[in-house]
Amino acid sequence: MAKKRAVYPGTFDPVTYGHIDLINRARKIFDEVIVAVADNAVKNPLFTKDERIDMLKQSTRGLKGVTVEGFDELMVDYVQRKNINVVIRGLRMLSDFEYEFQMALTNRKLNDNIEIIFMMPKESYSFVSSKLIKEVALWGANLSQFVPPFVETKLRKAFKK
Amino acid sequence: MAKKRAVYPGTFDPVTYGHIDLINRARKIFDEVIVAVADNAVKNPLFTKDERIDMLKQSTRGLKGVTVEGFDELMVDYVQRKNINVVIRGLRMLSDFEYEFQMALTNRKLNDNIEIIFMMPKESYSFVSSKLIKEVALWGANLSQFVPPFVETKLRKAFKK
Amino acid sequence: MAKKRAVYPGTFDPVTYGHIDLINRARKIFDEVIVAVADNAVKNPLFTKDERIDMLKQSTRGLKGVTVEGFDELMVDYVQRKNINVVIRGLRMLSDFEYEFQMALTNRKLNDNIEIIFMMPKESYSFVSSKLIKEVALWGANLSQFVPPFVETKLRKAFKK
Amino acid sequence: MAKKRAVYPGTFDPVTYGHIDLINRARKIFDEVIVAVADNAVKNPLFTKDERIDMLKQSTRGLKGVTVEGFDELMVDYVQRKNINVVIRGLRMLSDFEYEFQMALTNRKLNDNIEIIFMMPKESYSFVSSKLIKEVALWGANLSQFVPPFVETKLRKAFKK
Amino acid sequence: MAKKRAVYPGTFDPVTYGHIDLINRARKIFDEVIVAVADNAVKNPLFTKDERIDMLKQSTRGLKGVTVEGFDELMVDYVQRKNINVVIRGLRMLSDFEYEFQMALTNRKLNDNIEIIFMMPKESYSFVSSKLIKEVALWGANLSQFVPPFVETKLRKAFKK
Amino acid sequence: MAKKRAVYPGTFDPVTYGHIDLINRARKIFDEVIVAVADNAVKNPLFTKDERIDMLKQSTRGLKGVTVEGFDELMVDYVQRKNINVVIRGLRMLSDFEYEFQMALTNRKLNDNIEIIFMMPKESYSFVSSKLIKEVALWGANLSQFVPPFVETKLRKAFKK
Repeated sequence: MAKKRAVYPGTFDPVTYGHIDLINRARKIFDEVIVAVADNAVKNPLFTKDERIDMLKQSTRGLKGVTVEGFDELMVDYVQRKNINVVIRGLRMLSDFEYEFQMALTNRKLNDNIEIIFMMPKESYSFVSSKLIKEVALWGANLSQFVPPFVETKLRKAFKK
Repeated sequence: MAKKRAVYPGTFDPVTYGHIDLINRARKIFDEVIVAVADNAVKNPLFTKDERIDMLKQSTRGLKGVTVEGFDELMVDYVQRKNINVVIRGLRMLSDFEYEFQMALTNRKLNDNIEIIFMMPKESYSFVSSKLIKEVALWGANLSQFVPPFVETKLRKAFKK
Repeated sequence: MAKKRAVYPGTFDPVTYGHIDLINRARKIFDEVIVAVADNAVKNPLFTKDERIDMLKQSTRGLKGVTVEGFDELMVDYVQRKNINVVIRGLRMLSDFEYEFQMALTNRKLNDNIEIIFMMPKESYSFVSSKLIKEVALWGANLSQFVPPFVETKLRKAFKK
Repeated sequence: MAKKRAVYPGTFDPVTYGHIDLINRARKIFDEVIVAVADNAVKNPLFTKDERIDMLKQSTRGLKGVTVEGFDELMVDYVQRKNINVVIRGLRMLSDFEYEFQMALTNRKLNDNIEIIFMMPKESYSFVSSKLIKEVALWGANLSQFVPPFVETKLRKAFKK
Repeated sequence: MAKKRAVYPGTFDPVTYGHIDLINRARKIFDEVIVAVADNAVKNPLFTKDERIDMLKQSTRGLKGVTVEGFDELMVDYVQRKNINVVIRGLRMLSDFEYEFQMALTNRKLNDNIEIIFMMPKESYSFVSSKLIKEVALWGANLSQFVPPFVETKLRKAFKK
Repeated sequence: MAKKRAVYPGTFDPVTYGHIDLINRARKIFDEVIVAVADNAVKNPLFTKDERIDMLKQSTRGLKGVTVEGFDELMVDYVQRKNINVVIRGLRMLSDFEYEFQMALTNRKLNDNIEIIFMMPKESYSFVSSKLIKEVALWGANLSQFVPPFVETKLRKAFKK
């Protein structure tokens, strides 16, 4: 049997416990999970791509079969180039569904060899979004339930600038 | 029995008949309703916080048990500092549900002593949003069914600048 | 200040940890919470109204300010007759929203003096429904995370018949 | 019988096969369909109004009963001034529903003589949005399934600037 | 110009003010509106098809261009046989959307010559459903805001049996 | 590397082109896909479990790595007993989302070793449901776009009884 590999693409601005939970779940299914960090200049991220890659590397240290890298092209082109045919997307209970479906169908039109599968994070992370976390971080909220400590530190620093 | 107090937080940019309807409904349940105007620089409001507070004060003049004030911190911190444990949020038939739930669950993680309750405005206001009103005000629409006359005047002035 | 009273109506077939969580949250806001068990012959409940009332009484024993009773008329008529003007409904993250809103607006047309407020159960109960529990109970699933032990026992007995 | 006329307003930034499919469907019902291109400075379109009008004209060339024009006022005022009482809106399977309804109800309050009807594009276009197309065009994706060839060329040029 | 005709199919068990409002709106667009009452034995209606046709006839008496009739075959076959190509469906703000879309797409697969258009009832009827009305009628609720007086009388009689 | 196996459970009453599309997609990801037919007496299926298994076997004949079998216990118990940890569920664009999530979270509480992943059928099948197909089959609709010919024959026979 060949190794089963899957890509988990996203902006991860910043990584949350929801993302980390999903990576762990994906690892139970696939032999290798590549977390792929999009540049995503359109979304105007708070952290640079390198910072986001570093945070993910630190968060997944020691997790066998997980690698982190950036990409700077159309997602389906990147996945195709890696010779992988499975893409993982998290589906939170709230708010993701329609956008994710719309994007998935668009990607399928662009390349129908790639299958997109959806996984659910633990329900206690099902409402955690990087966007909301940044909103409450702005006001100095305690973020220990949403992100790893070193990410919280980075968020505090970012909003002090 | 102690006085029952509740906070109704929001941006109110500007106040609509939907908000006013909700304040009246809340007053039937709680002895004191504090309308709390968020600074919300993130949303880049059309009116300053002071203008928004003034519009709410004028709209609720004579309503016993209703006070209006601004706040400039994490909502749950503000409510806790006021020693209140009930937060009211309006739930319009369309479009609010997911965001409100996501925000409510995030706030609950930040402070589980505070209960968030959702109330429905009158159905004829159930689709009225400050955002849509600003969009149509831009084109000089008649706003008399959405906002009090003095707010309409202020909107016209704002878009003439 | 007068006592603040609220009615929490439902079928409760059977009571779940989600319901119990909501009753506890309601108790933090209101001086008295009346859990009102609908006969609801239409839904063809698994347990008789008396059994459902008993399960709720046992589940809320010792909770100050909570009473349980049945009702057999139009909900708004019952609430009006009790001289109460607040009705509590739970809003689970999934699936309740539209039906609850539709019902609430219908009830408001029937009696606009009564305010319906929505509260959210703890997120780990946000997907628990009496209907789903009965479906998995049918197959002998372990129900300890969804219902109190004595309710689990009753469910097992019901499905052995 | 008088000619039946309808307006199909939008931003069309740029026109997609979904829009064109809808225009064809509308033509089966109405004698005359006026595609009305909003200036929509608020949305900060990629193409100027004139460019968008041109693309629509080119896309509907030869379609009997279809005209294209711009408008620069409140939509209901424009429609009223044209002496038309039917407005067509596309309803994609995903994501449009709530916004469209909210907007439609707001417009109805502004002018209740105008009826808004919703039509569905072919299901294979049901997820195609101008916004998503621009997102993938940015990365050089093949757009031949989403827009006419000359629109694809224009998109490529726009993103090369 | 030929007469524009449209079919408005449904179960109408019983007709509500929401249906009547929609028929009036449809009449502003089409020269002839045929209200088509499905037998719908599957849904096990409270009233017979003939009773439902009678109630609709009485409710639309005097409305020029409106006719009422029953049908007993696949909806698209019926519409095709009548040589009509427009079907009207009401879209209430709550709960209809997904089912209506699913049904519309299924019908389109069965006959792509028929266009289905969606119209919105007045917002104060946007939550009124025949099903909910029957639920509250069961308890003797005042139905004057939902259905014409003679329909209310028929509902009361039906639930007395 | 060990063989990757996944279970695709359902009622399949009857199998549709949507199901078959999903099985093909799953086969691209997993080495072995077990289609597991639930007895599901609760849903009162039109076809017996054996008939449904036969239809699936006939529909997947020649598909390497696909097996079909029935099960008669709690789904998570069945999957655990097979020593598999991945369950596949189809997610149609319309109507499935909330129920699927609720069920998935319930199953996760029952056994957190099992991961549920969601896959999307081809968009032209995204609205096809066994339930709707039975509704239109009742009226003798042409079903060739929804189900394989031999299933259409069986449906016709079933509704002639």
